[in-house]
Amino acid sequence: MSRPDPFLVPPTDADLDAAAARIAPHAVRTPVVRSDALDALAGARLWFKCENLQRGGAFKFRGACNAVMSLDDAEAARGVVTQSSGNHGIAVATAARLRGIPATVVVPANAPRIKREQIAAAGATIVDCGHVQAERDAVFAAERARTGASPIHPFNDARVIAGQSTATAELLAERPELDVVITPVSGGGLLSGAALAARRHARAHGRAIEVVGAEPEGARDAFDSLAGGVRITGRTPHTLCDGLRAELGPMTFALLREHGVRIALADDAEIVAAMRLCWDHLKLVIEPSCAVPLAIVLAAAREGRADYAGRAVGIVLSGGNVDLDRLPWQA
Amino acid sequence: MSRPDPFLVPPTDADLDAAAARIAPHAVRTPVVRSDALDALAGARLWFKCENLQRGGAFKFRGACNAVMSLDDAEAARGVVTQSSGNHGIAVATAARLRGIPATVVVPANAPRIKREQIAAAGATIVDCGHVQAERDAVFAAERARTGASPIHPFNDARVIAGQSTATAELLAERPELDVVITPVSGGGLLSGAALAARRHARAHGRAIEVVGAEPEGARDAFDSLAGGVRITGRTPHTLCDGLRAELGPMTFALLREHGVRIALADDAEIVAAMRLCWDHLKLVIEPSCAVPLAIVLAAAREGRADYAGRAVGIVLSGGNVDLDRLPWQA
Repeated sequence: MSRPDPFLVPPTDADLDAAAARIAPHAVRTPVVRSDALDALAGARLWFKCENLQRGGAFKFRGACNAVMSLDDAEAARGVVTQSSGNHGIAVATAARLRGIPATVVVPANAPRIKREQIAAAGATIVDCGHVQAERDAVFAAERARTGASPIHPFNDARVIAGQSTATAELLAERPELDVVITPVSGGGLLSGAALAARRHARAHGRAIEVVGAEPEGARDAFDSLAGGVRITGRTPHTLCDGLRAELGPMTFALLREHGVRIALADDAEIVAAMRLCWDHLKLVIEPSCAVPLAIVLAAAREGRADYAGRAVGIVLSGGNVDLDRLPWQA
Repeated sequence: MSRPDPFLVPPTDADLDAAAARIAPHAVRTPVVRSDALDALAGARLWFKCENLQRGGAFKFRGACNAVMSLDDAEAARGVVTQSSGNHGIAVATAARLRGIPATVVVPANAPRIKREQIAAAGATIVDCGHVQAERDAVFAAERARTGASPIHPFNDARVIAGQSTATAELLAERPELDVVITPVSGGGLLSGAALAARRHARAHGRAIEVVGAEPEGARDAFDSLAGGVRITGRTPHTLCDGLRAELGPMTFALLREHGVRIALADDAEIVAAMRLCWDHLKLVIEPSCAVPLAIVLAAAREGRADYAGRAVGIVLSGGNVDLDRLPWQA
């Protein structure tokens, strides 16, 4: 009964272990792949953790599953509610269905069609709202009050961060020699989880692992927030990466600062080029948001910067939910 | 010195084991994936062996690698030569580069651009020819005489069949409960290897495994050959499956007959629809040829046939080398 508030208290190492055990029966232990051609372009050894092959097509299932499965039976019976323009909504809907409880997802008007369809296909109730954050928050609060359901935040939630950490923990278990781990950053759940998992691995192996967040230029609130030491909110993002338009939350901002996580930027043209390279050389369908880490590594190589040269780099491929009728390299 | 002629004598069980050991240091042990959505459409439990994630983007690397690595040093020094419109050429070029020996690939004029580029990128010498089989054979014979290189046939070759068998052997090792294994069929190397691997597995586990070859309607020589008991040659195939335009060879025809392998047909529209479903639900880039097994399973479900209903079905996803600028569902 005296569980810490998951919206205020970040996860402990014990929480990370509990999350791994909790999701193991449900989540895919996704493969790690590589490519000679991409290594040659990068001048580095790249290992890709395929969360696009995760249940629901994105890493988000890990955090949502951990949150849903950690509810007690009385909480669970009232269902869960969240707001999401995409992959987190799919993930919460999927996890709720697995537990046999109702899920409500508040979906903004600008959400991609394929993601909206998948939320519905997973059996959740969709509640529409506008895409301004204040309106989303108001609709979410109203749904929460109406249903009595447990809220699951897409990133500012210790249960979700603990779940996302398992992607990086699995990657490091399979490739313990990694020097760097790079993930996309939006609200910061995946990246905070990576920082927590990397710190544990680094302590166990007695050497440092650099953790880098990959962010689109047009949604650079994490970059500016960490550079300035103040969490920036209220900007309007401009990027085709529909999964990377959120802003850091108080918990993820604090975790990324504490762990000294670096943010790197790529522009949309670099991101689309990297996305296509993943399709061509890894034979994986990934969404634009997922290509930002590779875009950053390739830009560093092209510009002759030493950031990743000759190093063993782990990249979390975050998701693959893309509309095949609207590929970004088509006119 | 008294090795059996690989173009005349099919592989033994010992050859299958030797192939698995020979390619293990070089080939990817590809993952096996599944999808709730595809299972629901099929009314069956489907497991997909991801040979599109194999080195070179197709299962072909297994057979080519086994053939190249089984040459003695004197043979290897003279290099290898093959003819291929695509994935086998990429595979032979890649295996030869790994062994550090020259490779020549005779490539017909109608080969897809992306496959031609990958053969060149792997360091092979490309010799152009027309697309009529007689002309391809003549150019191939001339290159072989000129170079003294060892020929590696894309399918009518015991070393290649033994190599291809490892895809199905790995699939059955991971999912020993499979009732059926389906692979595409063109020249029959992958399918013959599947039949050999399935027979061993069936004997070891004391129960039958059905092996099915998936063939486009417009290239149904295997279907008609096995139905009539006579190997059909000389037809002009009409299908967008650029990897499935070859005809069975004498060795593969005999093996498929001996093992009672069944051939099933799908038309190009069904194949394109199945290809897209794999992209959408498995998040995998696969080429049209690779989608024929799923097309056949889904057609059976749609038509209410019991062929695969409720069964555990293994599908070998053969490859992912597709031109991203020319996707078949685009006008």
